[in-house]
Amino acid sequence: MNYKKALFLINRKMAEIHYPHQPKTLYESINYILSMDGKKIRAILTLMACHLFQENIKPAINTALAWEIFHNFTLIHDDIMDNATLRRGNPTVHAKWNKTVALLSGDSMLILAYKYIAKSPKQYRDILLKLFSFTATKVCEGQMYDVLFENRSNILKKEYLNLIHLKTATLLSACLYSGAIIGNANKQDAKILKIFGVNLGIAFQIQDDVLDTYGNSSFGEKISNDIISNKKTYLLISALNSSNKIERDELLFWLNEKEQKEKKVTSIINLYNKMKIKEKAYKTIKNYYNKALDCLNTINIKEEKKNILIDFTNQLKNRKF
Amino acid sequence: MNYKKALFLINRKMAEIHYPHQPKTLYESINYILSMDGKKIRAILTLMACHLFQENIKPAINTALAWEIFHNFTLIHDDIMDNATLRRGNPTVHAKWNKTVALLSGDSMLILAYKYIAKSPKQYRDILLKLFSFTATKVCEGQMYDVLFENRSNILKKEYLNLIHLKTATLLSACLYSGAIIGNANKQDAKILKIFGVNLGIAFQIQDDVLDTYGNSSFGEKISNDIISNKKTYLLISALNSSNKIERDELLFWLNEKEQKEKKVTSIINLYNKMKIKEKAYKTIKNYYNKALDCLNTINIKEEKKNILIDFTNQLKNRKF
Repeated sequence: MNYKKALFLINRKMAEIHYPHQPKTLYESINYILSMDGKKIRAILTLMACHLFQENIKPAINTALAWEIFHNFTLIHDDIMDNATLRRGNPTVHAKWNKTVALLSGDSMLILAYKYIAKSPKQYRDILLKLFSFTATKVCEGQMYDVLFENRSNILKKEYLNLIHLKTATLLSACLYSGAIIGNANKQDAKILKIFGVNLGIAFQIQDDVLDTYGNSSFGEKISNDIISNKKTYLLISALNSSNKIERDELLFWLNEKEQKEKKVTSIINLYNKMKIKEKAYKTIKNYYNKALDCLNTINIKEEKKNILIDFTNQLKNRKF
Repeated sequence: MNYKKALFLINRKMAEIHYPHQPKTLYESINYILSMDGKKIRAILTLMACHLFQENIKPAINTALAWEIFHNFTLIHDDIMDNATLRRGNPTVHAKWNKTVALLSGDSMLILAYKYIAKSPKQYRDILLKLFSFTATKVCEGQMYDVLFENRSNILKKEYLNLIHLKTATLLSACLYSGAIIGNANKQDAKILKIFGVNLGIAFQIQDDVLDTYGNSSFGEKISNDIISNKKTYLLISALNSSNKIERDELLFWLNEKEQKEKKVTSIINLYNKMKIKEKAYKTIKNYYNKALDCLNTINIKEEKKNILIDFTNQLKNRKF
């Protein structure tokens, strides 16, 4: 079961979601975000983790969907908080409808995610329900830090790593762990996969930070939202923490700038370039990806099965958006 | 187990909720709303329903808490949507912190509610989990209608009843039903209690509408929020649907008025009085309370147990805020 097969299964299952006709606005907005083309990484990881330990991945599909719907719930609510207007190249839910609709469709999607957890295999339902709530809480905590950090310029790298651990890594890790549980993995292997997920998640998030500023978006919304909104990304924290006085003053000047958006983006990128921040970030990203791959080496399963997950990891590593 | 005993047990259990220390803002805001003095009707109904069928209500306490936390989640998010500044006489979460904090603490509370459902008795957990998600979805649908109705002046009484059925009655009904399930009631009795809950919920919500406009708030925030925000309450819909041309024009004039808030409230109340809208509303309320009490008569349990629920119903019926 390679990446394409997994994606196909997930998309097919998502297309089967039944939405009530009324209230129209509520279900149209949920359908709108869930029908967008997305990478479906969380659902894919769930299926792949299950497949590592058993051929039949069918029992994992509802759980995979639960994670994916949960992820989309966080996107809708995060976009409200960030005042973001574009998501995957399309208007965000609150931009297309309004914030009230976005708030309610997010809430409904969180509940919908739980409905899919309730459809997970009976013998694992309790543990998956607990895992799901635990993870969801961590993601909210991470988002809270993300918001609180916006008004601070003295974030330590340790604090940033804790934030992305909560917001991204815990989720990817939980997806993999849930797949392993459903695949009936032994405790040791499931635990290794969890650690694999944490490292993958941290690598993935730092890379996301880099791509927001340096990547070619597949959707064409190029100008770095992170820079405009003073998001405390790996790049910015790295720059703030390794700058000399002149560089720091320049950074702080641009962080306080609200009007000249394009100039702000160009100036900060120039500073990043001068300080070789991107190169430092890629070193860290590589580090975490390698740590993740090292984990996989210690799992006791056939190479050909492992290779599917290794290939997918490399695909994530080499992504350009 | 009378009303006071139930409230005591719930308050004690809520005081035991453990909040992590960090992120401080997130957990302070959750603790803030959950510590407010509230009527705890949903949790009380859960315990009372259980007690109808068995002496030991301990197995119902986690589920009771889940409903109460869920209800408070809806309050936080509703207050964002309604731009309300006061809740139970205190600043709303978004007024005290900000909308981002309110959004996130609401999300976290919905997850917290599910954590309590996950602690419900193992043999009923599946059915309670399903009931919880089903009910939560209905409440979101109800809130969506509530918001969508704001910009319409042609709401039918049927549409309003559907809205409050979804937003209030389904929840009260589910609380009672869950208590009956945990109390190991037979199917027939559990079903009757569900119908009792629907009628109680409709009566309760119409009464809430009346009290917002006519009641003496226990917290002193008297001026009718519903009138100021053009909320489609029982009173307003009743007035719109039974007005003659002159009355309707006057109503529509005041609905379009945004500035003169106090004058708007006084004028609309005067119109309601002239049209005897309050009396009509109380007739309907009494009707639904009676329907609810009729249901209780058909349940096959000792009168003394029934009387506790009848007393509580009468207490709700006679409330002044």
